[in-house]
Amino acid sequence: MAKITEFEQDIIDMIDQKKYKALKETISAFNPYDLAILLENFQERSILLLFRLLPKDLAADTFVEMDTERQRALIDSFSDKELREVIDELYIDDMVDIVEEMPANVVKRILKNSTEITRKTINHILNYPQDSAGSIMTTEFVGLRSNMTIVDAINKIRKIGLDSETIDTCYVTDNVNRLIGYITLRTIILSEDSNTIEELMETNVISVNTFEDQEEVANMFGKYDLTVLPVVDNDNRMVGIVTIDDAWDVLEKETTEDIELMAAITPSDAPYLKKTTFDIWKSRMPWLLILMISATFTGMIISRFENALQTYVVLTAYIPMLMDTGGNSGSQSSATIIRGLSLHEVEFIDIFKVLWKESKVAILSGLTLAIVNFVKLMLFDKVGFSIALIVSSTLLITVIIAKMVGSTLPMLAKKIGFDPAVMASPFITTIVDAISLIFYFVITGIVLG
Amino acid sequence: MAKITEFEQDIIDMIDQKKYKALKETISAFNPYDLAILLENFQERSILLLFRLLPKDLAADTFVEMDTERQRALIDSFSDKELREVIDELYIDDMVDIVEEMPANVVKRILKNSTEITRKTINHILNYPQDSAGSIMTTEFVGLRSNMTIVDAINKIRKIGLDSETIDTCYVTDNVNRLIGYITLRTIILSEDSNTIEELMETNVISVNTFEDQEEVANMFGKYDLTVLPVVDNDNRMVGIVTIDDAWDVLEKETTEDIELMAAITPSDAPYLKKTTFDIWKSRMPWLLILMISATFTGMIISRFENALQTYVVLTAYIPMLMDTGGNSGSQSSATIIRGLSLHEVEFIDIFKVLWKESKVAILSGLTLAIVNFVKLMLFDKVGFSIALIVSSTLLITVIIAKMVGSTLPMLAKKIGFDPAVMASPFITTIVDAISLIFYFVITGIVLG
Repeated sequence: MAKITEFEQDIIDMIDQKKYKALKETISAFNPYDLAILLENFQERSILLLFRLLPKDLAADTFVEMDTERQRALIDSFSDKELREVIDELYIDDMVDIVEEMPANVVKRILKNSTEITRKTINHILNYPQDSAGSIMTTEFVGLRSNMTIVDAINKIRKIGLDSETIDTCYVTDNVNRLIGYITLRTIILSEDSNTIEELMETNVISVNTFEDQEEVANMFGKYDLTVLPVVDNDNRMVGIVTIDDAWDVLEKETTEDIELMAAITPSDAPYLKKTTFDIWKSRMPWLLILMISATFTGMIISRFENALQTYVVLTAYIPMLMDTGGNSGSQSSATIIRGLSLHEVEFIDIFKVLWKESKVAILSGLTLAIVNFVKLMLFDKVGFSIALIVSSTLLITVIIAKMVGSTLPMLAKKIGFDPAVMASPFITTIVDAISLIFYFVITGIVLG
Repeated sequence: MAKITEFEQDIIDMIDQKKYKALKETISAFNPYDLAILLENFQERSILLLFRLLPKDLAADTFVEMDTERQRALIDSFSDKELREVIDELYIDDMVDIVEEMPANVVKRILKNSTEITRKTINHILNYPQDSAGSIMTTEFVGLRSNMTIVDAINKIRKIGLDSETIDTCYVTDNVNRLIGYITLRTIILSEDSNTIEELMETNVISVNTFEDQEEVANMFGKYDLTVLPVVDNDNRMVGIVTIDDAWDVLEKETTEDIELMAAITPSDAPYLKKTTFDIWKSRMPWLLILMISATFTGMIISRFENALQTYVVLTAYIPMLMDTGGNSGSQSSATIIRGLSLHEVEFIDIFKVLWKESKVAILSGLTLAIVNFVKLMLFDKVGFSIALIVSSTLLITVIIAKMVGSTLPMLAKKIGFDPAVMASPFITTIVDAISLIFYFVITGIVLG
């Protein structure tokens, strides 16, 4: 981004010297994303000035890329006419995103300056449940009829194409608007004028219901290599499309959510540097508190075996190693399964396959670690055979339990409708800690009496 | 996938009864991804039979979706003519993917049955470093010249469009093949026949160098809302395009790699259920071993303070809670920063901003936990003021250190060229364990003498 920072002083100079023509040329060469980042560094008044110099479509695209706060500030400075011009250039799905983030008075002003049909469409999309296909779709697509010829189709595309988010894929519907096929612009342009849509359209069209979860929607883009996905209602009537840029955002957002949950953080939308200290604290605190209190059990187990520890203080020294190795073994399994579940490489039905595979891996890993540990205890720590035996066999059992717990808990969580990502390292560690300590002391009891 | 499983018996029946026409109709209605999954459940001979019944383009697309083992088996059963037909339908980037996975003798047979130009292109792409833009691009795109009219362009697209992976975006080059702009099929079809490409093309074209890392390439699709990205050499000459389906795969793969690294697993390509026990063991073992041996330090610290622990055995009971809370606090910070780094929401230059934010969060979180813990120790555990003070103040310091270490280590790792994802929970926990124990005993020394 160094290139952009170099420009900044030039632009400030041009603003000061009122060289608007040069300014317009300079900033019009940017793409919306870089321009939005560039504008972030200017004062509000300069932003408005620069914004007014942009060609309308670039201005609208840049507006979409800005953060909510700056969008709000800009809307406040816009005249009604300017607001209408921006709204005019926006795609419906981007408008819905903006409306969702704005305070009520701004929303009111946006809707007041929209056409009635836009207003209705926005309200319609806002009515779909959060995170559903309906909530991320746009209603601007090209619909064709099967009896049209290529010439008819091209004429229709030319007529409504400018307002449609994509025309690369057009959808074919019957007389009651039911989705019956699709045809790509590529096919249209590579075909003879007199061909009919019916002859050329693909009928095995993949679609989703308006209420489908957005994570599933995003997965379908990856699975079927789509760039656009039609959204239909319960009667298979075409209501909109989801384009891949929105699916991409969903994929990134859902992945971030998974990673946050796996690290015991309540997911939230804003980028890290834009979150307040209090927001970060709020998203992390409950989990730390719950996990801290859960660790009380581990403390209670140790307290119960105080006598053993007082007699063999050396045993205390190996508690951290046992706990960490247990935690790590469990995290490996849970992270693998959680990721497998979200990529649909693993499903609940595979639970016995997973258990079988993990138990083999667990025994192999546990044995390797136990043997290395035993040799280290005997040769370097020189703790004596009994202690080495106690620590190493606890280690073996800990690894096996950790991998069993780590691999099954996420699957069970998903089965009963929880997000499997919660069953990651922190929870697994807390559970495995307690179990492995119990084994530690039981084995000590058996070996040392 | 229940729908597919229902079909299976029907299909087996149709094979047995040699109802090939009905069979052909049934399976031709599938899309490549579902068909590949369906075929997985059949025997090799049936797969070949079904495969031969498919239209050529669907057969090739389905072939791309199959796993490497089944692809190899199919190639082995293909006649040279059949192999040529499949190769003919494949896009170059898919062919490269297949060639990369196949054993030498199969590769030889594939190349023998390819045209000379295909052979050369494959070798050319294979020469780019793994994970570079060059290695995931395809060379099949539509190149236009700026002096062409829309009619010329449409004629050119019609001529070479069938063999190009996408024609939705066409690239404009000068007379030495340097990339100077792009034009979408949408613009072409919405424009007058007599317009020239020069009048209509966009000149602020975003491109990547052939050697750019594929993770950066994938990021650019998200940032700039692209569906295709041109790849240029060091002289800005156009050599290929990356399409969004490949970028999507890269994004999913890189995310999986991050999650695996964060859980102390060496990343590998195959889906979980297809990996052997030994492969899984190999990818997990080294990390467990390193981390186990690192935990020795923690043990050594405890050993040095054996006397203190023997005098105040109650202190032992709080070691797991301190370690777990430290680990969890550190994981929260490291996971947040690692994800921020890979989304480019956080960069190394922000390190002081991050440290400042994390220290505020750390103090706030640490104080909350310490106070709750203190109350619990006094009221429920009834350990006495000194012990409650020792445990709670260690907790506060542990949380602060954990958040500092957890947030800075990933950034430093990235700065010196390591993958920040390695600096996640397991490593942070090991480091924080040792530091927090030292503080535990030092504070004990101060409070109890």
